[in-house]
Amino acid sequence: MIHNYVRTVTSLLFFVTMINVQLSAQDEDVAMIQQLHETILKNGSCYSTLHTLCTSHPGRIAGSPNYLGAAEYTRNILSKIPSVKAKLQECKANHWVRGDVEDVLILNDKGELERMEALSLGNSVSTNGAGLMAEVIEVHSLDEVDKLGEAISGKIVFFNRPMDPTKIKTFNAYGGAVDQRVYGASRVAKYGGVAALVRSMTTRLDNYPHTGVTIYEDSLAKVPGFALSTFDAERLSAAIKKGPVKVFVNTNCRSEGMKSAPNVIGEIIGSEYPNEIIVIGGHLDSWDVGQGAHDDGAGCVQAIEVLQAFNRLGYRPKRTIRCVLFSNEENGLEGGKTYAKEANKNKEFHIAALESDSGGFSPRGFSFEADTSVFKSYYKSVSKWLPLLESYGLQFEMGGSGADIGPLKSQKGLLIGLRPDSQRYFDFHHTTIDTIDNVNQRELELGAGAMASLIYLIDKYGLK
Amino acid sequence: MIHNYVRTVTSLLFFVTMINVQLSAQDEDVAMIQQLHETILKNGSCYSTLHTLCTSHPGRIAGSPNYLGAAEYTRNILSKIPSVKAKLQECKANHWVRGDVEDVLILNDKGELERMEALSLGNSVSTNGAGLMAEVIEVHSLDEVDKLGEAISGKIVFFNRPMDPTKIKTFNAYGGAVDQRVYGASRVAKYGGVAALVRSMTTRLDNYPHTGVTIYEDSLAKVPGFALSTFDAERLSAAIKKGPVKVFVNTNCRSEGMKSAPNVIGEIIGSEYPNEIIVIGGHLDSWDVGQGAHDDGAGCVQAIEVLQAFNRLGYRPKRTIRCVLFSNEENGLEGGKTYAKEANKNKEFHIAALESDSGGFSPRGFSFEADTSVFKSYYKSVSKWLPLLESYGLQFEMGGSGADIGPLKSQKGLLIGLRPDSQRYFDFHHTTIDTIDNVNQRELELGAGAMASLIYLIDKYGLK
Repeated sequence: MIHNYVRTVTSLLFFVTMINVQLSAQDEDVAMIQQLHETILKNGSCYSTLHTLCTSHPGRIAGSPNYLGAAEYTRNILSKIPSVKAKLQECKANHWVRGDVEDVLILNDKGELERMEALSLGNSVSTNGAGLMAEVIEVHSLDEVDKLGEAISGKIVFFNRPMDPTKIKTFNAYGGAVDQRVYGASRVAKYGGVAALVRSMTTRLDNYPHTGVTIYEDSLAKVPGFALSTFDAERLSAAIKKGPVKVFVNTNCRSEGMKSAPNVIGEIIGSEYPNEIIVIGGHLDSWDVGQGAHDDGAGCVQAIEVLQAFNRLGYRPKRTIRCVLFSNEENGLEGGKTYAKEANKNKEFHIAALESDSGGFSPRGFSFEADTSVFKSYYKSVSKWLPLLESYGLQFEMGGSGADIGPLKSQKGLLIGLRPDSQRYFDFHHTTIDTIDNVNQRELELGAGAMASLIYLIDKYGLK
Repeated sequence: MIHNYVRTVTSLLFFVTMINVQLSAQDEDVAMIQQLHETILKNGSCYSTLHTLCTSHPGRIAGSPNYLGAAEYTRNILSKIPSVKAKLQECKANHWVRGDVEDVLILNDKGELERMEALSLGNSVSTNGAGLMAEVIEVHSLDEVDKLGEAISGKIVFFNRPMDPTKIKTFNAYGGAVDQRVYGASRVAKYGGVAALVRSMTTRLDNYPHTGVTIYEDSLAKVPGFALSTFDAERLSAAIKKGPVKVFVNTNCRSEGMKSAPNVIGEIIGSEYPNEIIVIGGHLDSWDVGQGAHDDGAGCVQAIEVLQAFNRLGYRPKRTIRCVLFSNEENGLEGGKTYAKEANKNKEFHIAALESDSGGFSPRGFSFEADTSVFKSYYKSVSKWLPLLESYGLQFEMGGSGADIGPLKSQKGLLIGLRPDSQRYFDFHHTTIDTIDNVNQRELELGAGAMASLIYLIDKYGLK
């Protein structure tokens, strides 16, 4: 009887202790997540870091002097955080240069050439020292080019399928239209076309052309590609409806070959599991136009802010937290590939990697992916934390993560993408107006707060 | 046996039929909500309506010619929607006028007066034909004024408690600071102070003063009140830390008495329950500075868009859907009070009222309130619809609705507020930069889509 009583009391005490431990752990997490948000909203420096990055190192195309300046600037910022070891990781990337000639001119009824707002697509070849004039054929898909076949020979092909405005998430609309920009020029070359014009990737009607990568098939000839502003895409389309239209294009853009374009890395070594690495990052390169503010200066400064917030709060992580600012996401992904290759060579295991590369807008959650053999168990683990993050307006979903961390997928860690509100992203993406004045400080900071909170939870609990 | 068999088959058939009915009702709702979003994102006119409202009828303070122009413009827009009956509902409001003199000048070390960025608070009295100069006392709360008591006699009191940047929802930060603007001038007068300066209601540091209402106690003297830009609030505070500071204030703002400022109403009579009214609306008046784009042109054009979307899809509501654009929300709420008074007089029952008055930003959900005797049952009803709206990024919460529909609460219907993302609202609220170029078309349209979807569900199912 006494024995039973003791056992019962012991069990009860154990039970009560467990509840207390659980409660206090949860209270601790609630408090820590609140403190992380508070320090970032009150004392964060990500917005001022982004301001300097954008204004002193704009147009950070990989391999350019501006890219190298940005790498040195961010390495220096990271190195000033106590407990962070910062370095550059060597990486080479093809340095593409826009050049100083860039004309897309429409021949009007009166025989005059009128300028249209256009940008050479990133990676495009030049018009070989002279412009070229040709009739324009309007199409709405790559398939349509295949169907036209030799009929496009000697012509300029104008891809004019808009992003679908009825998609609620604008990235889905982008995904549904961007094949024209990426593969259009090469497809045109296949049938003897002489250049590609592509309607800019945005649902807005405005005067800003959106550049972005075009990829050539090695086996085919290369013809130049241009993005047209949506206003001018409408204008060109309207002109074509009235009868044959000729356009003159001229560009001296070129590749300058492989150049140094290092990744920037800053890490805090974990106190208990130093060999379990958690990456947070964005990509430091941008297109050459604009300041790369949302794409992806925002992601870089948010990742830096996570380390700074941990430092301000005196949080010593159990696992190794590594901030990686990747190179060359826009034009070849050399940064992400190099990072993963080195990591594999050094047998470094990445338990998780979180990328912010969808703009510095109000955060709405995270998207998770992993190798199918481990995904379910990871997603179950992280789903337990959702109640801690919901009051910050955050939700979880399964889906893609980020281009730069993609090459780590074979390590079977968890890959995560920050998911900000997507409505305004394609107003600015790859344009001259992707600038600091179009970034809202609170929205940027809340994204950093969301990232810091999730990294804290992964670091503390792992993914069991 | 046969009998049993027949019964079983009959039951099974009944069961299958029930599932079909339920499924098809749900499918119908999914399809309708998708169509509502698609028509608004593709063919909606709310952004162009807002553009005209902002550029042709800016600064729509109730009782002003601009307000009357806006009322006529929106009545006309509503009247052009087939099946909508549009009218003006007479209402009178105190017409406050800023005047052409508005100076807040700080006396510097050299004895010179330097301009600070300031706006008279709405409803403020003038400085009676002449400016006044006095020493400034900085305080951080109304209580502090009470404690200082007669020590503030003859002084200008400067309220400098900032909005708390660590609140995730900016409206909570606003609620925690705005008492200084609303009651500061009157509290100062109580102890013989001569004017009130109030730090602008924003978490940003910038040069834009934010006006807004100040309310006087009838029993006390009235002294003028001004909003200072946050930069100048910091500057004034820094100056005060060095020693006594004098400021000169001068304004000839004034009340022009009660003027006509009608509500604008457009309604579709319900086909089955015409006596059950569902209100959707915003307020048509704005402050006199800026264009009243987010506050609250956005809410007005979204409410109009709901009727237009129903019309474009040929949706004939069962209940009476009434779009109400309220007058004088900013400076007395006469529009909301008049509307409720007339409704009660005419024994009109409002099953629900939905207001959009938190800016034209990306919608994140709805907030619900009602008389406590009915709230629980209503909230249970609407909660069933959440799965239909979650894929649009919408969540439900209990909380406030909107100032203009508040007076309907005693009718015991459901009151609802659209809840857009709040991060940027106080960048623009009550300033010269609350303009159309700071409204994103997609964000505005998605808000209208959310409103149309919820109104469709309430109309179709009621609140049983």
